[in-house]
Amino acid sequence: MTSQERKNVKINPDIQNERRKCTFLIEDFAEFWNGGKEKLAEKRWREDYFLNDPQMKSEVPMEYLSHKEKYEEAIRKSTISFRKIRELRSQGKDGIDDYMALLSGNLGSGLTPDGNPFGLHYVMFLPTLMGQATPEQQAEWMGRAWACNIIGTYAQTELGHGTFIRGLETTATYDPKTQEFILNSPTLTSYKWWPGGLAHTANYAVVVAQLYTKGQNYGIFPFIVQLRDEETHMPMPGIKVGEIGAKLGMNTVNNGFLGFENVRIPRKNMLMKNGKVLEDGTFIKAPSSVLTYGTMMFVRVVIVRDMANYLSKAVTIAVRYSAVRRQSPINPEEREPQIIDHVTQQLKLFPQIAKSVVFRMTADHLWNLYNQVTTELDKGDLERLPELHGMACCLKAITTSDAAAAVEICRLACGGHGYMSCSSFPITYGLTTAACTYEGENTVLLLQTARYLMKSWASAKIGEPLAPTVAYLGRNYKSTVQGIRPKWEGSIPGIISAFQTCAAGKVKIAFDHVEKRKSEGISHENATNLTSIELAAAADAHGRSFLIQAGYESLQEVLKQVPPALGKVLQDLITLYAVDAALRALGDLLRFVSISEEDIQKLQTTLETLLTNIRPNAVGIVDGFDIPDGILQSALGAYDGNVYERIFAEAMKSPLNKEPVNKSFQLYMKPFLKSNL
Amino acid sequence: MTSQERKNVKINPDIQNERRKCTFLIEDFAEFWNGGKEKLAEKRWREDYFLNDPQMKSEVPMEYLSHKEKYEEAIRKSTISFRKIRELRSQGKDGIDDYMALLSGNLGSGLTPDGNPFGLHYVMFLPTLMGQATPEQQAEWMGRAWACNIIGTYAQTELGHGTFIRGLETTATYDPKTQEFILNSPTLTSYKWWPGGLAHTANYAVVVAQLYTKGQNYGIFPFIVQLRDEETHMPMPGIKVGEIGAKLGMNTVNNGFLGFENVRIPRKNMLMKNGKVLEDGTFIKAPSSVLTYGTMMFVRVVIVRDMANYLSKAVTIAVRYSAVRRQSPINPEEREPQIIDHVTQQLKLFPQIAKSVVFRMTADHLWNLYNQVTTELDKGDLERLPELHGMACCLKAITTSDAAAAVEICRLACGGHGYMSCSSFPITYGLTTAACTYEGENTVLLLQTARYLMKSWASAKIGEPLAPTVAYLGRNYKSTVQGIRPKWEGSIPGIISAFQTCAAGKVKIAFDHVEKRKSEGISHENATNLTSIELAAAADAHGRSFLIQAGYESLQEVLKQVPPALGKVLQDLITLYAVDAALRALGDLLRFVSISEEDIQKLQTTLETLLTNIRPNAVGIVDGFDIPDGILQSALGAYDGNVYERIFAEAMKSPLNKEPVNKSFQLYMKPFLKSNL
Repeated sequence: MTSQERKNVKINPDIQNERRKCTFLIEDFAEFWNGGKEKLAEKRWREDYFLNDPQMKSEVPMEYLSHKEKYEEAIRKSTISFRKIRELRSQGKDGIDDYMALLSGNLGSGLTPDGNPFGLHYVMFLPTLMGQATPEQQAEWMGRAWACNIIGTYAQTELGHGTFIRGLETTATYDPKTQEFILNSPTLTSYKWWPGGLAHTANYAVVVAQLYTKGQNYGIFPFIVQLRDEETHMPMPGIKVGEIGAKLGMNTVNNGFLGFENVRIPRKNMLMKNGKVLEDGTFIKAPSSVLTYGTMMFVRVVIVRDMANYLSKAVTIAVRYSAVRRQSPINPEEREPQIIDHVTQQLKLFPQIAKSVVFRMTADHLWNLYNQVTTELDKGDLERLPELHGMACCLKAITTSDAAAAVEICRLACGGHGYMSCSSFPITYGLTTAACTYEGENTVLLLQTARYLMKSWASAKIGEPLAPTVAYLGRNYKSTVQGIRPKWEGSIPGIISAFQTCAAGKVKIAFDHVEKRKSEGISHENATNLTSIELAAAADAHGRSFLIQAGYESLQEVLKQVPPALGKVLQDLITLYAVDAALRALGDLLRFVSISEEDIQKLQTTLETLLTNIRPNAVGIVDGFDIPDGILQSALGAYDGNVYERIFAEAMKSPLNKEPVNKSFQLYMKPFLKSNL
Repeated sequence: MTSQERKNVKINPDIQNERRKCTFLIEDFAEFWNGGKEKLAEKRWREDYFLNDPQMKSEVPMEYLSHKEKYEEAIRKSTISFRKIRELRSQGKDGIDDYMALLSGNLGSGLTPDGNPFGLHYVMFLPTLMGQATPEQQAEWMGRAWACNIIGTYAQTELGHGTFIRGLETTATYDPKTQEFILNSPTLTSYKWWPGGLAHTANYAVVVAQLYTKGQNYGIFPFIVQLRDEETHMPMPGIKVGEIGAKLGMNTVNNGFLGFENVRIPRKNMLMKNGKVLEDGTFIKAPSSVLTYGTMMFVRVVIVRDMANYLSKAVTIAVRYSAVRRQSPINPEEREPQIIDHVTQQLKLFPQIAKSVVFRMTADHLWNLYNQVTTELDKGDLERLPELHGMACCLKAITTSDAAAAVEICRLACGGHGYMSCSSFPITYGLTTAACTYEGENTVLLLQTARYLMKSWASAKIGEPLAPTVAYLGRNYKSTVQGIRPKWEGSIPGIISAFQTCAAGKVKIAFDHVEKRKSEGISHENATNLTSIELAAAADAHGRSFLIQAGYESLQEVLKQVPPALGKVLQDLITLYAVDAALRALGDLLRFVSISEEDIQKLQTTLETLLTNIRPNAVGIVDGFDIPDGILQSALGAYDGNVYERIFAEAMKSPLNKEPVNKSFQLYMKPFLKSNL
């Protein structure tokens, strides 16, 4: 809804009242959240430009279509939205923000709510060309790819291998006679499986395959393969391609499979920046291949940011609904209250608001770290790469699993109505939980962080200097080894310090248990597997201390820039995040920190006070996320709060409601009811 | 797959090997789990009878159909399955187990995986007639209803009111002139919303409405209303009926809405067992209305049992897949291991096996309690009713939310492939998480239990005797008040006792905080709301102590009956349940029990030992759940373990894969790719 439209609509009085009693200016929050007045204006212009184009309307809501129709509708809408980007470009008005908005986060999820079949063209195909093609190869491919004259995808994951990419089975064998690579899928499990857009959309792909030349395997490399004829879209000879079938969510991403039967591609189709094969078949390794790390890191930062966006959407819906829904009297003689007045409801929702803010701040923090490290990388300094990797891994794992759980908390807080597709929760959960698995399965990622922590602990042990994000391990080393439990201090810095103490304690336990097992004659690898529960727990604790810290440090910066009334609200939210985290981690705190029953009661009181503080501002805050109805697509969460009218209107769109009697009555039911057999 | 078919199929060697190395007889487990040799044989016969009827096969897997087609297919299959029940009945072979199996649990979910549109006819319409109709009314309605000549549903929940039923708005106003009730929907929010089968299936309904007679409101009562013409199925005059739209799951349940515009029904259509309106409009209250409690209680027992069933299905799929999937080397020089050998994977899966068993045992326990209490009720003894209510509420809340979380743990443990519909996880999650909301929202239920706990604590305070399930509050009263933390003892009885101590501690805190707030002048109701976080936590702790206890007590009985090898396995599972619960409740244990760091380390070691013990038996145990492939409907979880072949075969069923080029290429993509505008 545009601001003009907002003025003309009847607003639910309960939600109107919430907006009136807000203690801060909602527009101030919107500016803070969207990066300033100018960015906010740009964002609104962009949303209006894409969402309010009448071509973007679907005749029937997607949830009523068949799987095939959903895909066709998504292609229709995607081509329209990318034409609109071309239009912007032709006017010199397109920017990186436009692409990002379309491909990730909330605007993208508004345009193609169940996933974009062209997404991987931009998110993986183009970046891989940019990162791994030689200048000559870029000259050949980038122009057409950038103009969308060809559509590519990135085919890495196979039916049998996902996270462990060294296990990939697809082969690319060099034939010096014809100067071609021959691609093959030697087993069923070697079929590419999952790449977005692969099934019926892309006509090109970067295919990751085991390189063989002169009878030797050199590991995995990327190759450009044409999948379909550009005129007819028919699969090329030897290419077996199709879709992998229906899924929990993201059904319009068009995830596909791909098999090769002696598919020949020219030698120059191997992306050669990180290794090349000469005409005669000689393999030459590139001096350094750290640059491929960059893309992976970038994608993980984007994921953390996406989690903040999806969660902000879910909590907007749940908070607005909770301000309109009235149920279950608190006082029998009074009117049923808005359900947001039930304290248990506040405990469900407000920490999710806080989480949205902290995840966003953490994404920005990680982004800064990423930029620092890549600047150092360009100077040949690789020192902070493992640290960045360790942090990106555990933050991706924690934010995706927390966000998915939080979306479900928001949904369940809306009772049965949250279960309806028109709430938009089911599709939002599908998007969010998918991130727990893609780009590195969460447990595997935690264990990668743990590996870095084990190395850091070993360094701490011998007094070596530690990287900034693990410096606390050094500071805590001595007291942790001595089993000293530092005194609890309930401020946010105190909570951060306590979480770091817990993380150090858990790192120590995991480290000691690996060492103990090794001392019993168990190999390092087996000892690590046997200790993996505690290793994952250590990585989790490490990431959680960073999240609170990132929120707190960002807050200090933000407080300098925003009006005091908004500052107070943000302070409440960050404090709530920390206090809620502390109460959920009581087991750890009681083990590693000297916290008394009185301290715990005080924490609980602080929690309850914060809920009370946030209560009058809750609707204002989610309004400040500034997510338009066209993105929310939720009968429960619309700006006007006309929940019941909207639910009813959505139900009437069901094709089943177009006829009073469904044909199954005559076909099946009547013969059944009228007989006794 | 029948046992004969099993013999003729190529079994994946990894999974075959698992079955060989099992330390117990799988058939023994199957007999234990299914209630003995005879019940197991019956169950298998029943599954074969229903599942392997060729009419029950769908041409296209449901996930590819449109919403409307899904409904039509569900009606087709439902009429077939109930015709088959009629067939059994005509042979005198039907039993209550057949109906239960069809309507709840795993066989039902195999026949109509996304919900049964006739379900509420059996689960609510018939039982309500049995429980709330007078003998004359039963004579009029039961015959046709039982023969399925009419199909009913139960219309209680409204758009504006779910759990808080006293707030329902639909009115039934008595008109003595015509001796009719006039039904009306005075507001939009008074529309019935959610009842299964209501939309296009049922032609009758029990409608719960506010009774008005002689100008006075007497609260809510049930009325039989004809919704549709028996010949044409057209809605009756004044009836506005349709479906509420697509949902996260259960899309073939045909949940509907229903509005009334001066709908007149004869006086005798009011179900009069608990209150009646005489011809002149005089209202007469029935002596006692506790009997309606019975149905609600029964449904909650069924829900706990369903949770055990759904979870056993999810964990069967995840365990079998984890025995077949190989990924990520533990030792670089060895073959990639079965992922079930990663200890983190064991921690994800094995506690869910244990949970299935404990939930089943708890359902049986609750069922016994229910039968005891209803026997006492029949003798006019209402004493244990509040206790049963308190226990059923918190167990429904805990088992549904734990089961939903556990299904997702199983799904995520299968990585990306768990996200595919062909895994069967998405639909299983849809079924499971729905139970968190229906039949009483979980937080509301926890608060109902808490109310009972507060009363019990008050009784303990003055030394009154307490009901058996809360007797521990009395035993712990003194030490809790004195803040004494009893010594930790790591056996299962020790863990139960520790959980009871924690529950008592939390009950005390909640009680004290309510009292403190009241002493500050806050009303009882507001004090309760302000303390509701702690009240819910107390109820949660109470329920969890009961779950461990129910598992442990059942185990003692079972151990007397099963072979020792199986007994050992069950002992491991129940112990794992208790130890895992303890480690997750460390914060509570450290607060209320005297547990040392050494004790905690010992618990962790026990956990790891149990995982190692269960590892060789995991596949055998889930085989022992004896869920046939026709119910699992999972490419990842089939008995033969031919995971990749089955995933591929499922993908090929997608209608998108029937054509090499989708029409959207010519329609949308080609014009887009070929132009630069």
